[in-house]
Amino acid sequence: MENMTLAYYAAGAGAIALLFALFTMSQVLKESMGTPKMKQLSEAVQEGAMAYMNRQYKTLAPFAIVIFVLLWAAQYFVHQAPGSHLPVGPASAISFLVGAVCSAIAGYIGMNSTTKSNARTAEAARSSGLGKALQVSFRAGAVMGLSVAGLGLLGVSVLFIIFQSPLIINSFAFGASVIAFFARVGGGIYTKAADVGADLVGKVEAGIPEDDPRNPATIADNVGDNVGDTAGMGADLFESYGATTIAAMLIGNTLFGFPGVIFPLLVGAVGIISAIIGTFTVRTSEGGNPQAALNVGLWSTNVLTAVGTFFVAKAVFPSEAHVIINGQDTGVAFENVYMGIFLAVMAGLIVNVLVGYLTEHYTAAGKGPVNRIAEASKTGPATNVIHGLAVGMESVFFPMLTFAAAIFISYWAVSAFAPEGQSLLWSIYGIAMAAMGMLSTAGMVVAMDSFGPVADNAGGIAEMAELPKEVREKTDKLDAVGNTTAAIAKGFAIGSAALTALALFSAYVDGVKHKFAAVLPNGEFVVNLTEPIVLVGVFIGGAIPFLIGASTMRAVGEAAFGMVEEVRRQFREIPGIMEGTGKPDYARCVDIATRSAIAKMIFPGVVAVSVPILVGFLLGAKALAGFLGGLTTVGVLMALFLANAGGAWDNAKKYIEGGAYGGKKSEPHKAAVIGDTVGDPCKDTSGPAMNPLIKVAGTISLILGPLLLKL
Amino acid sequence: MENMTLAYYAAGAGAIALLFALFTMSQVLKESMGTPKMKQLSEAVQEGAMAYMNRQYKTLAPFAIVIFVLLWAAQYFVHQAPGSHLPVGPASAISFLVGAVCSAIAGYIGMNSTTKSNARTAEAARSSGLGKALQVSFRAGAVMGLSVAGLGLLGVSVLFIIFQSPLIINSFAFGASVIAFFARVGGGIYTKAADVGADLVGKVEAGIPEDDPRNPATIADNVGDNVGDTAGMGADLFESYGATTIAAMLIGNTLFGFPGVIFPLLVGAVGIISAIIGTFTVRTSEGGNPQAALNVGLWSTNVLTAVGTFFVAKAVFPSEAHVIINGQDTGVAFENVYMGIFLAVMAGLIVNVLVGYLTEHYTAAGKGPVNRIAEASKTGPATNVIHGLAVGMESVFFPMLTFAAAIFISYWAVSAFAPEGQSLLWSIYGIAMAAMGMLSTAGMVVAMDSFGPVADNAGGIAEMAELPKEVREKTDKLDAVGNTTAAIAKGFAIGSAALTALALFSAYVDGVKHKFAAVLPNGEFVVNLTEPIVLVGVFIGGAIPFLIGASTMRAVGEAAFGMVEEVRRQFREIPGIMEGTGKPDYARCVDIATRSAIAKMIFPGVVAVSVPILVGFLLGAKALAGFLGGLTTVGVLMALFLANAGGAWDNAKKYIEGGAYGGKKSEPHKAAVIGDTVGDPCKDTSGPAMNPLIKVAGTISLILGPLLLKL
Repeated sequence: MENMTLAYYAAGAGAIALLFALFTMSQVLKESMGTPKMKQLSEAVQEGAMAYMNRQYKTLAPFAIVIFVLLWAAQYFVHQAPGSHLPVGPASAISFLVGAVCSAIAGYIGMNSTTKSNARTAEAARSSGLGKALQVSFRAGAVMGLSVAGLGLLGVSVLFIIFQSPLIINSFAFGASVIAFFARVGGGIYTKAADVGADLVGKVEAGIPEDDPRNPATIADNVGDNVGDTAGMGADLFESYGATTIAAMLIGNTLFGFPGVIFPLLVGAVGIISAIIGTFTVRTSEGGNPQAALNVGLWSTNVLTAVGTFFVAKAVFPSEAHVIINGQDTGVAFENVYMGIFLAVMAGLIVNVLVGYLTEHYTAAGKGPVNRIAEASKTGPATNVIHGLAVGMESVFFPMLTFAAAIFISYWAVSAFAPEGQSLLWSIYGIAMAAMGMLSTAGMVVAMDSFGPVADNAGGIAEMAELPKEVREKTDKLDAVGNTTAAIAKGFAIGSAALTALALFSAYVDGVKHKFAAVLPNGEFVVNLTEPIVLVGVFIGGAIPFLIGASTMRAVGEAAFGMVEEVRRQFREIPGIMEGTGKPDYARCVDIATRSAIAKMIFPGVVAVSVPILVGFLLGAKALAGFLGGLTTVGVLMALFLANAGGAWDNAKKYIEGGAYGGKKSEPHKAAVIGDTVGDPCKDTSGPAMNPLIKVAGTISLILGPLLLKL
Repeated sequence: MENMTLAYYAAGAGAIALLFALFTMSQVLKESMGTPKMKQLSEAVQEGAMAYMNRQYKTLAPFAIVIFVLLWAAQYFVHQAPGSHLPVGPASAISFLVGAVCSAIAGYIGMNSTTKSNARTAEAARSSGLGKALQVSFRAGAVMGLSVAGLGLLGVSVLFIIFQSPLIINSFAFGASVIAFFARVGGGIYTKAADVGADLVGKVEAGIPEDDPRNPATIADNVGDNVGDTAGMGADLFESYGATTIAAMLIGNTLFGFPGVIFPLLVGAVGIISAIIGTFTVRTSEGGNPQAALNVGLWSTNVLTAVGTFFVAKAVFPSEAHVIINGQDTGVAFENVYMGIFLAVMAGLIVNVLVGYLTEHYTAAGKGPVNRIAEASKTGPATNVIHGLAVGMESVFFPMLTFAAAIFISYWAVSAFAPEGQSLLWSIYGIAMAAMGMLSTAGMVVAMDSFGPVADNAGGIAEMAELPKEVREKTDKLDAVGNTTAAIAKGFAIGSAALTALALFSAYVDGVKHKFAAVLPNGEFVVNLTEPIVLVGVFIGGAIPFLIGASTMRAVGEAAFGMVEEVRRQFREIPGIMEGTGKPDYARCVDIATRSAIAKMIFPGVVAVSVPILVGFLLGAKALAGFLGGLTTVGVLMALFLANAGGAWDNAKKYIEGGAYGGKKSEPHKAAVIGDTVGDPCKDTSGPAMNPLIKVAGTISLILGPLLLKL
């Protein structure tokens, strides 16, 4: 079975997904953009989004080049044992660059697709109806989803075909990580600075509705939906995809040799083909339920992936094999290991569904938690905020139990079929497989997530272009569904980040083991929580998510402050702006959001990249392992807390706007608006920053492991 | 050196501290209570506080009796190896009860002292001036501080004299833990329900000032200051004191035999005598600075403790000894170990100072972080809350680094003097010693903390009894100092909880090692973070602080809601209440606060006690170790985050009230009041609940360790 043809299959599946994405894009572009006004608005959003993307990547380029050079040059400073591979050198530097560039390309394709589809979706809702509007917006999302998964799979497969070693190409994940962290943080600051700025002055002070064309920050706000939700989420899942695949390949290589390396790529191929098929099942009629249509898409993808994975596992892994240690056949036999691996992948798929359900429970209007917040708004903003914080904290418990159960079950599944006296790596391999299972459907999940901002923007354009009320009602219906799919995608992003980080952690431990094999007792690298140096690492690692949370939240506060001042200035200085005769200076608001987002993403980025390096070199490999453990646990907790609290506040406000507790303009509504504003940076900036934070630490450590100087 | 006389010395020091506390109390009681109105108000607060304490302990009694019976009976269900001790049986059950009862007695003495001193402090400020007012209020605090430390030391010493084994008496810590958890949570809910209720209706809706006698919730509010700050903090530090002493004795026993067991008791004796001497140095003149006076007290205690510890360590530990393993002399010699132990104790004392300084930096008005929040109030409550959350998150970083440094330094100090090829326990012993160092000065710290609520209450009584304005100004000066000492004490409580939890964790690991010695490879119990079952424990443990945070925060919201309704009802139904002719029904508000606090402390209490038991028995000893690691890390982070965010919001409001950004009644002030209200349950309920949470899990695990059924 050891033949590289299989890697070509995986690369082929990635290429097919990309081609399908381009074909879908061409279909979307055939649709009409509606009135000249709509076209003009859509182009303003597009321009703003592209301006941001260009500035972001221009800022990141020197940063990426420095890392590229360091990775290339590091080979001269590190001792390489004969016959061993090092995770640095030209091949690693190139892999890093490919990872970064692929992430950027996926971002551009996706952004291009979603920003070009907003007016088209509004027009479809106007001229044809709900079914067509869903089709256009979902197709736009599918372009993003399939680009992310397709480029991920293609990139890893091609690099593997060229360099033939998962150790060398793990810089691909590092490249994707660095871009993802900046995209998440920068995009998150942008979107919330614009949103909070637009809301505070527009809605609260001037009393004009959301998306009112008189608001100078309204275009920036719509741009923000794209750079935050679409580009940020896309980069995030691209990173999870790449990192998990490579971590699984690394561990698989140690355990099984070639079958272990190729299997993750094939699971990716199965998942992506399933996602393409799944997109065809998403369709609804005029009176239909768009949510149900999307659910059909997700479930068909899940089921097809599960079935496909079963057969691939059975084909790739020999039904009987011997344990090989350092190239020596030990004679110890084991059977049907594919069954355990398949079950672990299944555990990942099930976590998907459960975490999505839990996220919805804690953040959807009409359910207990959100209603509690809405009810607490009766006694004012303070009690609204207190109950929101409580819901956010409460919401972490069951997802954490679910992750714990996934770890336990995948470990148990693989162990059950593992040989007698198995090494620890066997049980860890289960976790990597669960992560693969979860991520194999990323194409579909990103598609569902990206469709939301398109619908949201379509509503904004309908409002600004003063289309009939029914159009906005249709896009609102899609937007409401988009909020649910966004919640599901957020749960997915957090869950996959958690499992990815654990897979990276395991791969790091494996790397350290090889590096220090000579000095380790029994050759095992044990990360013993009772050793003080490990505890030191855990304490430092645990504090980092709070530090990043603080700096991103403060960044939003400061950037929003700049935006508020600018909107107030325009209201004050531009004559006739409130009567609709004076034209607001949209471009200036877009520029302010862009500048402050770029400026303020630097500090968190430098912390995220440099602290693991400092811990590793100053305190050693054990401290770094503890650091990763503390960082991952606390990062996942904070991600859940912040995302769910923010989501719950948002929907409590919407619930009141729907008529509960006095409805719009009542005192409870004002309280709920304050809660929603507090939640904005939580759910869209600081919370989402946690996912790439824990992964970037993992991908750096993977490279550092074999270079560290002491245990 | 092995003689029990030393334990009698420790018991004697504890008894002296208690006698000194009673003598100080009698001196306070000699002071005048002022006018009949003042006396009447003071008695209302006293009655309310005692009613709460009685109800709380009555509710806890059956709970405690069930545990008592279980601990007694458990010996019949557990296999005991011949010659070994078990942490269950009659002696353990009795120790548990002694721990619980001593904690309750300390609470009663302290509560009695602080509630009887409020009017006396106000009267001292009125008739004699600031110096005398400081004397009365500080003496009242000293009664609490010395009772806590004295009863702690006396209890552990006497039990040790009777039962002669630290393993048997570790239930003392468990008893103290259970009481501490309930006292913290119940007291925290009480104080904030009353405070938020009084503020929301009184200050915000009716527009009457703080402590206005027309507000029906004002007595409940003053009672809350006592049951929350004084009784809660006292029980919390009593628990840390007992748990750390016993954990240090357990580890010391394994390493050194008798000297290791007796040393922690002697450090406690040195600390308590130093604290008694320190209280004499606290005095100020009329124009003097009360803060400076308190600092002198704290520093003299610290220095005396450090010097005393050095000589005790030198005397107790032999300058040269051999390593003993299982009673066999291995012939491996080591020298001057007392030096390493002394340095570790010093590390603990220094952490004290640093964490106090950091807490002040993040929460004191006039410093950057608090001013940022105050400035953000200009753009409304939402930005105030966002910046408060950011400050809270940011504030965890340096304290966590400090704890990490303390772990590292104390480990290094002990290791440097340890024998060659030392076991892991040696390095861990350093952490326990740092915890001992930190806690040895608890008598002084609790005294400084308890003085705050007395001054606060004195101000309230001055206001309600309509004393001249100068009196209130003097008590306000003391109250402001009280806020700083409270911040220092909060940092102290969190830091000591962190180190205590780590010491308990280490003692637990040692216990498991003995229990499973036969099946452990090399006889070492390794808590390997890369094992899936450990990760499962870490994930579950990490989620618990969020769950407890949520349930306590929600409890405050709901209890405050009840209080708001009641105050509104009284304003509506009692004729002439706003004109001062109708008398508000204070007792009913006191009763509502009491009932809801008691009812709502049950759920968090049951979670805190039962989850470690479930994890231990269902998932095994490794999972429980991971659980403790995750719980401790996240619990400390959340404690810092919640306490500092709340403190910063509070002082941002005070800063604006001092005239910044428009001063009182301005829009920024209204925004800051909302932030302060959000911060109330954070800093006084959910945050403080974290300390006993992590310790109660540790003390239970210590008992569970030798009883667990699987690794």
